[in-house]
Amino acid sequence: MSDFRSDNTCPPAPAVLARLQHALAAGGSAYAEDEITSATRASLSQIFEHEVDFFPIFTGTAANALAIAQLSDRFGEVICHRNSHIFLDECGAVEFHSQVRLRPIEGRHGKILPESLPPLMDSGDPHRGKPAILSLSQCTETGLVYRPDEIAYLAGKAKLAGLRVHMDGTRFANAVAFTGASPAELTWRAGVDVLCLGATKGGAIGAEAVIFFCPDDAREFRRMMKRAGHLGARMWFLSAQIQAWLDGEYWLRAAGHSNTMAAMLDQALRASGIQPHYPVEGNMVFVEMSSDQSQMLADKGFLHYFMEQPDGHLVARLVTSHDTQPAEIKALARAIEECLAASFTTAGKQTGRVGSEALANVPCRERPKSRL
Amino acid sequence: MSDFRSDNTCPPAPAVLARLQHALAAGGSAYAEDEITSATRASLSQIFEHEVDFFPIFTGTAANALAIAQLSDRFGEVICHRNSHIFLDECGAVEFHSQVRLRPIEGRHGKILPESLPPLMDSGDPHRGKPAILSLSQCTETGLVYRPDEIAYLAGKAKLAGLRVHMDGTRFANAVAFTGASPAELTWRAGVDVLCLGATKGGAIGAEAVIFFCPDDAREFRRMMKRAGHLGARMWFLSAQIQAWLDGEYWLRAAGHSNTMAAMLDQALRASGIQPHYPVEGNMVFVEMSSDQSQMLADKGFLHYFMEQPDGHLVARLVTSHDTQPAEIKALARAIEECLAASFTTAGKQTGRVGSEALANVPCRERPKSRL
Amino acid sequence: MSDFRSDNTCPPAPAVLARLQHALAAGGSAYAEDEITSATRASLSQIFEHEVDFFPIFTGTAANALAIAQLSDRFGEVICHRNSHIFLDECGAVEFHSQVRLRPIEGRHGKILPESLPPLMDSGDPHRGKPAILSLSQCTETGLVYRPDEIAYLAGKAKLAGLRVHMDGTRFANAVAFTGASPAELTWRAGVDVLCLGATKGGAIGAEAVIFFCPDDAREFRRMMKRAGHLGARMWFLSAQIQAWLDGEYWLRAAGHSNTMAAMLDQALRASGIQPHYPVEGNMVFVEMSSDQSQMLADKGFLHYFMEQPDGHLVARLVTSHDTQPAEIKALARAIEECLAASFTTAGKQTGRVGSEALANVPCRERPKSRL
Amino acid sequence: MSDFRSDNTCPPAPAVLARLQHALAAGGSAYAEDEITSATRASLSQIFEHEVDFFPIFTGTAANALAIAQLSDRFGEVICHRNSHIFLDECGAVEFHSQVRLRPIEGRHGKILPESLPPLMDSGDPHRGKPAILSLSQCTETGLVYRPDEIAYLAGKAKLAGLRVHMDGTRFANAVAFTGASPAELTWRAGVDVLCLGATKGGAIGAEAVIFFCPDDAREFRRMMKRAGHLGARMWFLSAQIQAWLDGEYWLRAAGHSNTMAAMLDQALRASGIQPHYPVEGNMVFVEMSSDQSQMLADKGFLHYFMEQPDGHLVARLVTSHDTQPAEIKALARAIEECLAASFTTAGKQTGRVGSEALANVPCRERPKSRL
Repeated sequence: MSDFRSDNTCPPAPAVLARLQHALAAGGSAYAEDEITSATRASLSQIFEHEVDFFPIFTGTAANALAIAQLSDRFGEVICHRNSHIFLDECGAVEFHSQVRLRPIEGRHGKILPESLPPLMDSGDPHRGKPAILSLSQCTETGLVYRPDEIAYLAGKAKLAGLRVHMDGTRFANAVAFTGASPAELTWRAGVDVLCLGATKGGAIGAEAVIFFCPDDAREFRRMMKRAGHLGARMWFLSAQIQAWLDGEYWLRAAGHSNTMAAMLDQALRASGIQPHYPVEGNMVFVEMSSDQSQMLADKGFLHYFMEQPDGHLVARLVTSHDTQPAEIKALARAIEECLAASFTTAGKQTGRVGSEALANVPCRERPKSRL
Repeated sequence: MSDFRSDNTCPPAPAVLARLQHALAAGGSAYAEDEITSATRASLSQIFEHEVDFFPIFTGTAANALAIAQLSDRFGEVICHRNSHIFLDECGAVEFHSQVRLRPIEGRHGKILPESLPPLMDSGDPHRGKPAILSLSQCTETGLVYRPDEIAYLAGKAKLAGLRVHMDGTRFANAVAFTGASPAELTWRAGVDVLCLGATKGGAIGAEAVIFFCPDDAREFRRMMKRAGHLGARMWFLSAQIQAWLDGEYWLRAAGHSNTMAAMLDQALRASGIQPHYPVEGNMVFVEMSSDQSQMLADKGFLHYFMEQPDGHLVARLVTSHDTQPAEIKALARAIEECLAASFTTAGKQTGRVGSEALANVPCRERPKSRL
Repeated sequence: MSDFRSDNTCPPAPAVLARLQHALAAGGSAYAEDEITSATRASLSQIFEHEVDFFPIFTGTAANALAIAQLSDRFGEVICHRNSHIFLDECGAVEFHSQVRLRPIEGRHGKILPESLPPLMDSGDPHRGKPAILSLSQCTETGLVYRPDEIAYLAGKAKLAGLRVHMDGTRFANAVAFTGASPAELTWRAGVDVLCLGATKGGAIGAEAVIFFCPDDAREFRRMMKRAGHLGARMWFLSAQIQAWLDGEYWLRAAGHSNTMAAMLDQALRASGIQPHYPVEGNMVFVEMSSDQSQMLADKGFLHYFMEQPDGHLVARLVTSHDTQPAEIKALARAIEECLAASFTTAGKQTGRVGSEALANVPCRERPKSRL
Repeated sequence: MSDFRSDNTCPPAPAVLARLQHALAAGGSAYAEDEITSATRASLSQIFEHEVDFFPIFTGTAANALAIAQLSDRFGEVICHRNSHIFLDECGAVEFHSQVRLRPIEGRHGKILPESLPPLMDSGDPHRGKPAILSLSQCTETGLVYRPDEIAYLAGKAKLAGLRVHMDGTRFANAVAFTGASPAELTWRAGVDVLCLGATKGGAIGAEAVIFFCPDDAREFRRMMKRAGHLGARMWFLSAQIQAWLDGEYWLRAAGHSNTMAAMLDQALRASGIQPHYPVEGNMVFVEMSSDQSQMLADKGFLHYFMEQPDGHLVARLVTSHDTQPAEIKALARAIEECLAASFTTAGKQTGRVGSEALANVPCRERPKSRL
């Protein structure tokens, strides 16, 4: 069995676990007022070449929701892509924590484009809310990467209109590894105010870093965490995971590896005449196929999620991780080739494009129990 | 000056005011536990041929928000048209009162069609909310009317999937007058659970009726009202307005009149070769024109709202009321004809269709101060 | 039947109604952007000798909840008396609209005293909220009146600690009439930031004025109203009521009259050796009696609320209004005397003081249906 | 340095950590749909002699808030002791997650007594909320333990009135160890509906178990978790901690040890004529002392929290854990004796009882940076 469902379904990285042992034996003060958290804050300030404020959070959903709640104002609206995790996959967590409304927008390949942006200035009309936050996902849910100048353009437009800029960086490491740009260039230098940096999918057990590039923005954030039930006693254990993951640039090496594995899959598929549904930039490869073909792939031992994209296509999503081996990639590429060939005649109808009107409301993920 | 901005910008109807004098002198018990409210409840039960529970509410926004909050469950989503008032014009009131998310859907001419409906069954996926309420606007924001069998089809699909059905009936009277169907046929017989019946736009000062067709649904609704600040001392004054408006079928006569005035405008325009942007069924006529033409119309003394529709067209919205006179309609038709003719050459560019991607997020109403 | 239940159970004042006729015939623009509202704002600025911002609201509960929501911050706590209406009688409306916690405090006779105040400085502890608003009721729920220097002392302490000061002025007119102090002295000159001035209990149909003494505080308040369902179409009708009530100092004459009626009752009772439970300053008189005695009083035709006070005593609350006649007061005093004499022997046990531990949680109002 | 600040300031228990290694290497499925979580659910069903539903949660605050949100209804009130953690120390988390109001009540030594209970029946009055949840802390914040019959009495009264019963069991293990009663006798057999069983203070890194004794109550709880940001990818790691802590009755042995250490301290103090402020039943000992004495104790190397109790007394709180050694207890007792003797003459005034009116609002915990 090879597991390509997500980069959070593999075990945590041994390299990270090994570095946690010392912290576990030593302990630390409660409620994130400990030395490990302070040290991690210092590390992040160094990595981002800027004094930051940092808070460890247990889940990515909470990191996004609390960071947005912190920066948003009353009656605010969050501009996000309609493929974004905060819109599609967090059960309303952002709205719950911050009383904002999400305004999903379109954009090719899951990416917000300059022309995607709606008018951002507050109209002042009391019957309407006002744009308050621009949220970018790096990498996007489709596995694409925003370049520094793309971020700078979008964030610049947002800031001119008085919005704040949030980055859902659950796979930020993959974006750094892909672009070769510095963490600073991909964030505050381009106008990002708060980054939710994900370590969980990069090899930690479960830990995310909320990073405020303007420390003033973090005022009372620990109260925000406490009220949400996210200020636990041994927060030092989350900080320790982040510290271990950052240590010696492990985070970038692991992300580089998973990117390489995805690129290898991309090449193997293209060599067989199969074109992935989206350009492959990070660690995710989407292959259009029918439900039958997806089932066949699962039966061959290659676990994956089979989903309908907001654009109406049915795809298998294949995610690589720190744990993926080149041999698995080769076998996977072969298996996909077989599945697409074998059932091509009958599956055509099912894979066809679904009418766009209905699609806006169709769930984009199916997780048949049998194949997970 | 003739005022076609909205059916709430004219003064309340003298016929309604006259019938309020007795109640104002006599008073009543506080907090909607009074005899006028009871009597109105009885009247509504008779009109709707069904025992109903009824609560007077000061505004239409509150009526919608509280009715939906009452029927919705945790994690619920409200399926509504993307043109709907609850989505576009209530500053997030529904979400605020009920912690639901709105799921705007499309449909020609502002109307939800059978093919507009997304999958309604709860997937059970904890990352997603679940469809909980189907909300229909009668008339729609575009002035169209759902027929009984259309409601029955949509509501039937909703109920099969476990949803409840809400009707925003701010112009429900116009729909009754247009269809000739009974109030019962347009509501509970077709599957509607709760109707927010608007009297304000029909001639009352400011009063809406929240009508539950299953009285059990109204459990603790007065607490819902109180917590929202909508259970005032002299609620009997709101009930008295509704009673006065219903009395002697005034509500249907007034709606019939405003429908007739809109139909007269429709005919006059068509006779001049001008085709309104939507079919005219209730009391609203939309005429595509440029910003300059709209300004010219206002300068001629015909007040109106000039708006961009979600489909990208710029239109003047002309609303008739109990107060509209036939002579005003004739003058208005003539003025529109002149405006469209006069500036046709220069205004072409501005009226052009705007790209659809941007449009989903463009405010659909402009209210230039100078012309209101 | 004489009705002493509340000052909102009598019909509205004819003097107010008469002045509404012109506005009702003329109408006005929608959503509180009308000339009547502007004129009322100007009147209030004159009356309060300060430029104010003003918004009409349909209910006192909404006025309090929205005003507090407007001034409060995240994690804020509202310091209020444990007898206060916002704590006891608004079904959690303040918490609902503003996500604050109420911190009820004690104080003799329903009044917050200098020694009642808890520490007001924010401790910064993320496990705790922070004091954000001091809320004073003028008159108090027990009918007492804060003097200007008392307000100044309490508000001064609050402001030194960074809190804002809210005044629930549902019976503010009675306080002005009682003290002879100017409206300014009782509000902004003493440190009040926002006053919810009640006209409903003073003779209007149903209208309250939210008055911000620092207009900057009112930023986006119309959005706050809209989201709560409190920005209706014909807001001018609420403003017109307030205008009519203020006109020619009617508000102070009406309040003076009801105060006089209460004082007359106080004197008559004292002359008979009956000492009201609280000092009588405004328009409310509380008389300790048993449930049987209260029933007897009701049977004699004197409607009233019978309640348990937070201090554990059972009392009849007798409220006078613009509508109360001296003859009614004389008859009421006589009836009370009879009730207290007649049943004295048997009622003793029931009237006794209830243990204080249980009392904090006992509802302080019983409204037996039979006697309302 | 000996650390008696809390049972969450020591490192996690080596016995628990050792048992986690296998799970960390093997991993598991995401979002709490994994085998470790299922196995823990089965273990808990066995331990509680009843089929339960179980969900792992990262913090105790979240466990309490989500469990109460799950069981509470609209307009609900939570009856809890005024010393309770949910009232004093969670920054409003319960109100935030469930829109309830907390109603703190009194009761000797931090324990809710039969006579503490307010009327629990819903009055139906729309101006008031309604009692919905009775929340008991086991052990209490004062270190006392409810016996099975005490729970049964309180829960019985609550259930007769239609309330649900929540137990904050952050130190539930200590209560089992102290009473010798079975987990079942202390929970569902006595009427508890949901238990938040704390493993964090008993030796886990950070993991709490929300246990529903009626599995139907858990409907959609994973959505509740997701929306709150508490459904992370590697929930199996939390379940694994709970499993490791329960394994081989480690949880009861560890709790028994910490209870024994506290009892030893109690005895040593009493032998010196020092009477702890509350009876010592679990793992907490409170000793009345002045601020100077507390400082002296800290200077001697015995870390602790110095707090003001809601009853107005200043105390040092000394908490034992799985990690506390008998030698530390002996040294601590000696140090306390010295501190109390040394400064007795001057400290008298500071330790005196503070007036009760002010106390309700005084923070009960001071954490001078210098001594933590």
